Amino acid sequence: MSREPNTVFIGRKPAMNYVLAVITILSSGSKEVTLKARGRAITTAVDVAEITKRRFMESLSVSKIQLGTEQLEMQEGGTRAVSSIEITLTTEARPKEEAKATQEVPAPLPTEA
Amino acid sequence: MSREPNTVFIGRKPAMNYVLAVITILSSGSKEVTLKARGRAITTAVDVAEITKRRFMESLSVSKIQLGTEQLEMQEGGTRAVSSIEITLTTEARPKEEAKATQEVPAPLPTEA
Repeated sequence: MSREPNTVFIGRKPAMNYVLAVITILSSGSKEVTLKARGRAITTAVDVAEITKRRFMESLSVSKIQLGTEQLEMQEGGTRAVSSIEITLTTEARPKEEAKATQEVPAPLPTEA
Repeated sequence: MSREPNTVFIGRKPAMNYVLAVITILSSGSKEVTLKARGRAITTAVDVAEITKRRFMESLSVSKIQLGTEQLEMQEGGTRAVSSIEITLTTEARPKEEAKATQEVPAPLPTEA
């Protein structure tokens, strides 16, 4: 699914796409998932962590958050600095059964401010 | 400057405005500053932390990051969930002298992806 195991790269898709990826990884037996994002996707990464924890896996906890700066090559030449984040989520338990019945519990989703 | 001491609320202004606020607080003798942001401003908060650390105060470190979800009242009625972040920066030293001469060291700024 991605180049690094147990890593979800957050991009421009809706947060729920990545929430599903996180749940898939954790449901397959992994105890840990790392979300990686840069630039505007940083907000989406925080949304994914919060939605997964609050709606689907209350046993999930944030075990590590690392901030960073990456140098991106520009098409016009030169480089540009962009902020990045890595959020590591750790669980000791399996996804709640309710994860399969979210339609019945329409909790509000974090959206953009 | 804000309701809570040593706290900078990150909004829609350019990151450098908030970097200046952080440096002002740390220069007045405080050892700790907390950045608070929600929604899209989360990305700006990470930019502020990274720019302050890399360009102005290399002794600065991220001592704590807390993710959360806040319920916002909507004008139309009801509430909406929005993700939030609190980044605590801690220093043991005063701002570098170079902070006054940034024009001479035009390091690239994190910008939006």
